[in-house]
Amino acid sequence: MARFIKTKKDTIGLSPYAIHFRGDKKSDFIRLRLIDFNSEKLNELEVDRVGEVLDYANSKTTSWFNVDGLHDEKIMQEISSGFKLDTLIIPDVLNTHARSKIHEYDNCIYISLKMLQYHQSNDLISAENFVLIIKENILLSFQEKVGDVFEPIRERLRKSKKRIRNSGSDYLAFAILDIIIDNYIYIISLVGEKIESLDDELIKNPSKKTLEEINKYKGEINFLRKSIKPCREMILSLAKMDSELLNENLSVHLKELQDNINLANDSLDSYREILSDQLSIFHTSVSNTLNDILKFLTIFSVIFIPLTFIAGIYGTNFDNIPELHYEYGYFVMWGVIIVTAISMILYFKQKKWF
Amino acid sequence: MARFIKTKKDTIGLSPYAIHFRGDKKSDFIRLRLIDFNSEKLNELEVDRVGEVLDYANSKTTSWFNVDGLHDEKIMQEISSGFKLDTLIIPDVLNTHARSKIHEYDNCIYISLKMLQYHQSNDLISAENFVLIIKENILLSFQEKVGDVFEPIRERLRKSKKRIRNSGSDYLAFAILDIIIDNYIYIISLVGEKIESLDDELIKNPSKKTLEEINKYKGEINFLRKSIKPCREMILSLAKMDSELLNENLSVHLKELQDNINLANDSLDSYREILSDQLSIFHTSVSNTLNDILKFLTIFSVIFIPLTFIAGIYGTNFDNIPELHYEYGYFVMWGVIIVTAISMILYFKQKKWF
Amino acid sequence: MARFIKTKKDTIGLSPYAIHFRGDKKSDFIRLRLIDFNSEKLNELEVDRVGEVLDYANSKTTSWFNVDGLHDEKIMQEISSGFKLDTLIIPDVLNTHARSKIHEYDNCIYISLKMLQYHQSNDLISAENFVLIIKENILLSFQEKVGDVFEPIRERLRKSKKRIRNSGSDYLAFAILDIIIDNYIYIISLVGEKIESLDDELIKNPSKKTLEEINKYKGEINFLRKSIKPCREMILSLAKMDSELLNENLSVHLKELQDNINLANDSLDSYREILSDQLSIFHTSVSNTLNDILKFLTIFSVIFIPLTFIAGIYGTNFDNIPELHYEYGYFVMWGVIIVTAISMILYFKQKKWF
Amino acid sequence: MARFIKTKKDTIGLSPYAIHFRGDKKSDFIRLRLIDFNSEKLNELEVDRVGEVLDYANSKTTSWFNVDGLHDEKIMQEISSGFKLDTLIIPDVLNTHARSKIHEYDNCIYISLKMLQYHQSNDLISAENFVLIIKENILLSFQEKVGDVFEPIRERLRKSKKRIRNSGSDYLAFAILDIIIDNYIYIISLVGEKIESLDDELIKNPSKKTLEEINKYKGEINFLRKSIKPCREMILSLAKMDSELLNENLSVHLKELQDNINLANDSLDSYREILSDQLSIFHTSVSNTLNDILKFLTIFSVIFIPLTFIAGIYGTNFDNIPELHYEYGYFVMWGVIIVTAISMILYFKQKKWF
Amino acid sequence: MARFIKTKKDTIGLSPYAIHFRGDKKSDFIRLRLIDFNSEKLNELEVDRVGEVLDYANSKTTSWFNVDGLHDEKIMQEISSGFKLDTLIIPDVLNTHARSKIHEYDNCIYISLKMLQYHQSNDLISAENFVLIIKENILLSFQEKVGDVFEPIRERLRKSKKRIRNSGSDYLAFAILDIIIDNYIYIISLVGEKIESLDDELIKNPSKKTLEEINKYKGEINFLRKSIKPCREMILSLAKMDSELLNENLSVHLKELQDNINLANDSLDSYREILSDQLSIFHTSVSNTLNDILKFLTIFSVIFIPLTFIAGIYGTNFDNIPELHYEYGYFVMWGVIIVTAISMILYFKQKKWF
Repeated sequence: MARFIKTKKDTIGLSPYAIHFRGDKKSDFIRLRLIDFNSEKLNELEVDRVGEVLDYANSKTTSWFNVDGLHDEKIMQEISSGFKLDTLIIPDVLNTHARSKIHEYDNCIYISLKMLQYHQSNDLISAENFVLIIKENILLSFQEKVGDVFEPIRERLRKSKKRIRNSGSDYLAFAILDIIIDNYIYIISLVGEKIESLDDELIKNPSKKTLEEINKYKGEINFLRKSIKPCREMILSLAKMDSELLNENLSVHLKELQDNINLANDSLDSYREILSDQLSIFHTSVSNTLNDILKFLTIFSVIFIPLTFIAGIYGTNFDNIPELHYEYGYFVMWGVIIVTAISMILYFKQKKWF
Repeated sequence: MARFIKTKKDTIGLSPYAIHFRGDKKSDFIRLRLIDFNSEKLNELEVDRVGEVLDYANSKTTSWFNVDGLHDEKIMQEISSGFKLDTLIIPDVLNTHARSKIHEYDNCIYISLKMLQYHQSNDLISAENFVLIIKENILLSFQEKVGDVFEPIRERLRKSKKRIRNSGSDYLAFAILDIIIDNYIYIISLVGEKIESLDDELIKNPSKKTLEEINKYKGEINFLRKSIKPCREMILSLAKMDSELLNENLSVHLKELQDNINLANDSLDSYREILSDQLSIFHTSVSNTLNDILKFLTIFSVIFIPLTFIAGIYGTNFDNIPELHYEYGYFVMWGVIIVTAISMILYFKQKKWF
Repeated sequence: MARFIKTKKDTIGLSPYAIHFRGDKKSDFIRLRLIDFNSEKLNELEVDRVGEVLDYANSKTTSWFNVDGLHDEKIMQEISSGFKLDTLIIPDVLNTHARSKIHEYDNCIYISLKMLQYHQSNDLISAENFVLIIKENILLSFQEKVGDVFEPIRERLRKSKKRIRNSGSDYLAFAILDIIIDNYIYIISLVGEKIESLDDELIKNPSKKTLEEINKYKGEINFLRKSIKPCREMILSLAKMDSELLNENLSVHLKELQDNINLANDSLDSYREILSDQLSIFHTSVSNTLNDILKFLTIFSVIFIPLTFIAGIYGTNFDNIPELHYEYGYFVMWGVIIVTAISMILYFKQKKWF
Repeated sequence: MARFIKTKKDTIGLSPYAIHFRGDKKSDFIRLRLIDFNSEKLNELEVDRVGEVLDYANSKTTSWFNVDGLHDEKIMQEISSGFKLDTLIIPDVLNTHARSKIHEYDNCIYISLKMLQYHQSNDLISAENFVLIIKENILLSFQEKVGDVFEPIRERLRKSKKRIRNSGSDYLAFAILDIIIDNYIYIISLVGEKIESLDDELIKNPSKKTLEEINKYKGEINFLRKSIKPCREMILSLAKMDSELLNENLSVHLKELQDNINLANDSLDSYREILSDQLSIFHTSVSNTLNDILKFLTIFSVIFIPLTFIAGIYGTNFDNIPELHYEYGYFVMWGVIIVTAISMILYFKQKKWF
Repeated sequence: MARFIKTKKDTIGLSPYAIHFRGDKKSDFIRLRLIDFNSEKLNELEVDRVGEVLDYANSKTTSWFNVDGLHDEKIMQEISSGFKLDTLIIPDVLNTHARSKIHEYDNCIYISLKMLQYHQSNDLISAENFVLIIKENILLSFQEKVGDVFEPIRERLRKSKKRIRNSGSDYLAFAILDIIIDNYIYIISLVGEKIESLDDELIKNPSKKTLEEINKYKGEINFLRKSIKPCREMILSLAKMDSELLNENLSVHLKELQDNINLANDSLDSYREILSDQLSIFHTSVSNTLNDILKFLTIFSVIFIPLTFIAGIYGTNFDNIPELHYEYGYFVMWGVIIVTAISMILYFKQKKWF
């Protein structure tokens, strides 16, 4: 299946209101978790049915409801009605191949972006769709599979009683987005390190393996750009959004997100250019090595070809070859050969071939 | 005929009001179909003359009038006057080589875009012009030839009694545009998969066939961009259009169309870059292989050239070659040959040539 | 003389009010033609002196005054004063190397653009400067040499009594611009067809001639872009212009011009990219062929080099070469040679060299 | 010293108010000239001290004060105070390595741009900084060295009693800018002609000299772009400037400057692309020639290698080689050789190698 | 560690209010310096504790407090509370890997940018983060390590009693930014000079070393762009900022900063293109040299191969080779050989191979 754009033929022509999972199933089970907190108390629970958490959702305390695994359309239907979401939202959540975006509904803000993961084993990056829905007093988040990326936030919620416990669902959303974008930067820096380390081999020892790595990283940087560029637009829209759901104290934090996503983008542009340069340098370096090989071959051939010819002449069996009968004919031939060879070598030296 | 821009010499200088088919005839017959519906009832009929459907057009129910095949200028004239279209509209419908566009007339919105088709047999994509005219209570659509692309919408109209039956011609137009753009994405994903699969051959086994495929897909991606880019502008204009014909509930759907067409565009940009990269990698890989071949040839030649020379020397027929008469002269020659060859090999090893 | 930018040294420092022909003389004589018409009657005349047409210019009927050939500065002076043009206009008309532009004067609109011509004989395109001056009731047009490009419009004027005869100088100007831009599209499609047809030779049979054609068409596409790009800006300004001289019914036609010039531009961009791709493919294809040639040479050389060496060894004249005296020595040598050759061939087969 | 950006280490950290010459001294002496004129009379004088011209500066007549040579900081100080210039202006005039710019001060407009010169002898272009200061009734201009570029304007001032004598310092400034920009166009056309003439050698006779010229002109075009691009921004700002010092009649002339500078820019972009294309074509052409050479070598080698091998076989001295004793053995060998050679040639013909 | 983007895994998920040093420790000790001045007096002192300078900070005189070395989180905490900074500021100062930016807080303006250093020894450039905080009457600056870059400003403060002593913290900030940007230009000019000097070797003597240098400078220019581009955005925001902390007299100076940073950017773009061109020229030049080498080898081989073949023929030991017994057979062979060789040479001459 294509990596850069995915779609399923059977979803063409579906109503935009149809609750139908359009992605690839990445998880076998579904996990529903809720953290409910205000500055004084904090509750964590894991539930089986959506109904168990609706009370928290309606309380004055801030709640974070996280869904891992999206393939159960019945649960999705319950979330849609339980949390009184616009009927277009859950269908959108289930379209995990869509582009990152942000949309303001009447009572909530819908944010989708890609969460990236770097696989040490093969240097490849995979993407997972992630959706945040910011409502008053409640934040919904949807992941394609179970992950522990947000554990630092849960820790901050549990331990600290400061800002993150006093602020609403918007600040919590910022904290989540901040982790995701910091993770972008971290992944880019990992890939970047590998790319920069290719520089040493390019000219000194250009091999098929170097070429394969340039090709691989070109693909990864392209993939990162495809994932991160729409996210940048999305963060920009979020920063410009004038919604009652976003406290105005948040604006300085959103500017920070913008700076970070810009940093990520700038670096991707730099690495893209570096890889193009590396490929050009590699190619030129290979051509240059070719020259060296061929100079070597040419010098060698050109020196020996006339010598072999001379030897061939005196190997002929003509009855009448006067030179053969001179007493020192053989030695004179050696003399001619040596003089020829030395002249050739001097000629190449003067041409600066070696 | 050129694929990227088509025009006919004899249409230069024609009045913009002339009803003259400027395209290529792609269909032998013409098919006129009407679906008339509201939330309670639905009628489907296929007619021969435009006159038969005008009553439906003027009724309060929503009608969808679809024309397959555009070459009959008389029918076109009837449509123009029957549906009271601006005199510029039908000439525009008949100019199938034109760029995708949108224009707001007094009583209707004119939308033209390209409908794409992927041909499995040769991996090529063809484009057909498609026109939508949104009027109050009636939607007109024009295809160059008979196709079943919109069957899912007809199914939804027939079966469901929900949104699509309750909404007007604008929502129906959205559903049609949605299918066309989903189809773009589907075609891009098909071509994309093929492109991505080239990656394996590039370095391991670069062949003339790989090159031919890169060239072919470059052409297809160019063709897709040429077809889809103006469509993106058109969707943007549609989303910004402030027309009474477009219900304001539609705006969220138009935003979805925008997201999808952006996704298509982003992917095309990615694939374009991937193909350029692939070509560079291919070229570099070929140069690298050349090095390997020439190293091999050089090593071989350079080892044997002096050996052959030595043998040549002792093949000469000089009367006086003392070495020939030494008892072990022949074996000494072999010794010299073997030592020379081994030195050469060690020299190349040290130079890391193999 | 440079094709992409032309200027004359002796025009540097001239006053912008100087009536001085700055172009290249392309015509030996000058032709002044007038068509005067309204919905009822039409007069065509060809005159020698500007004075003969001034009465028509001042009448209520619409007039089209066309000047072919610009090198007579006296006539130009008469036009300037006869038609009461701003003193800067005629100097501008005479600067035929200038960039396409539009300027609104107090009582007229000045439009200049390039008119292109395709020469079948050598596949080259030439450009001629064309100026339109839209005044109330009169349209002035200036061509560098006599041409029959606008004959279709004259025909429409003569035959039809409809729109073109009822509308003013602005609609006539639109009709002229429409022909010029349709002509752009036609020329691009001619060149485009040639470019697309190169695709077949690129990989199967890349020759010096293919390369020459790629180079030629790159030049032509560059030349087209240089001529058409400023025209696009000009049409955009025209469409946005809020002048009393332009009837508001014209706006839909100007939008059509915009669509067409955009189509021309898009295609030029596509062809530019296609040509770049073709050159890259050509180059890569040539390198690939090189590999094939060198594989062939290497295989051949590497098989025969050791064989020749073996034969050389037994051509030496040492007194004591035991092998020479074995009864089947010669046949054993053949055996060794054949085994060596077969091993080599198997080695290359396994390396997938052929 | 770098050609594309110049600065002096000892000027880092200087106060922006310091009157300190930051450029390279290009002239040994300083020349101060004044032309004072109105529609009736005109005075030209050359002075040694700034004080001598201040009376003219304060009169109602228009004056043009031109300074050639900027290295004397004392004179500069006198100009600054004598003409009551803002204290930041003269320091800016002395920073000749700065970017072209325009700035509106309280009582004057400061314009700086590059004046270009083409050196026939080596095809190279040099740039000189030029500053114009437009005040009411007086125009100050500063050149790095004495030049006669503006002689045509002085001639127009001396001879004509028309527009240029009746208009103020702003029209004079326009005339000067017009000459400078016309000169840009002239220089580009000179370089452009040379570039276009390279096209013939690219494929027919690609040599090291062609490559050197491509490289040189790439540098020159880069240099021209670096000089002209900021000037374009500057002219745009000038055209948009709403200053009392600029008569509103000037706007049509400023638009002309814009058109000319845009023409220059467009051509530079075209030539830049042409040069890139030429380099690609050159490279590809060289690779193509390589193929021809190697085909030739391969055909030749491949035909003779087996022949030489056959001859070698029958040069061996085995006691028992039956073929040697056949009466027509030698002639049979020739037969085999000729048949082999012909087969090879046919094989290559069929492969279309020649 | 990657050079183009740096981050630490353990900072992901940290609260934006956490005072935690996120950079690399570049200094062993911390140096706190204060200059307090007005037009009459000036005090310089170096302190150990932040508390010692707070009195100056609150006085009416202008103070410049400079911190070299950022790793002591306790001192940072003291600065934050001592100078009543927004709680987000010091965490930002400690994030030295962040992108250059500007932010306006309630009582101060926060500016961060990169300070560059050129290392003569290895032609490499390193970057250090630099932060300026402009408050009323006090300017705070933070460097990662001790440096003497701003010594010229301290000198101007000490010696002059003019502008810099009379102006507030905003003018001082401008002077500091001016030095940093002048330094950018100086570094670019140093690298640029090296780049331009490569031009000579490209065609005349392209070697592996030239290639290595092109590669190195490509990296440096990329690094410079990555550091300077965000700074340009920052300066633009600063120039547009409408803050009470910035005196309106400053605007002309900020425009100067903009001009300088634009000059830096333009030059970087030029050099980037020059390097790309150089690489292309290098590659083409190498291919061209390859042609020369192979022409040489081919000419040589092609001349001698048939000669050696002829000699081989007459070295065979057939009983019956009539030519061998002709009296002048040997000399005729020489004749044939010489004629063949001369024909070959003439053939190549005619083909213009040498």
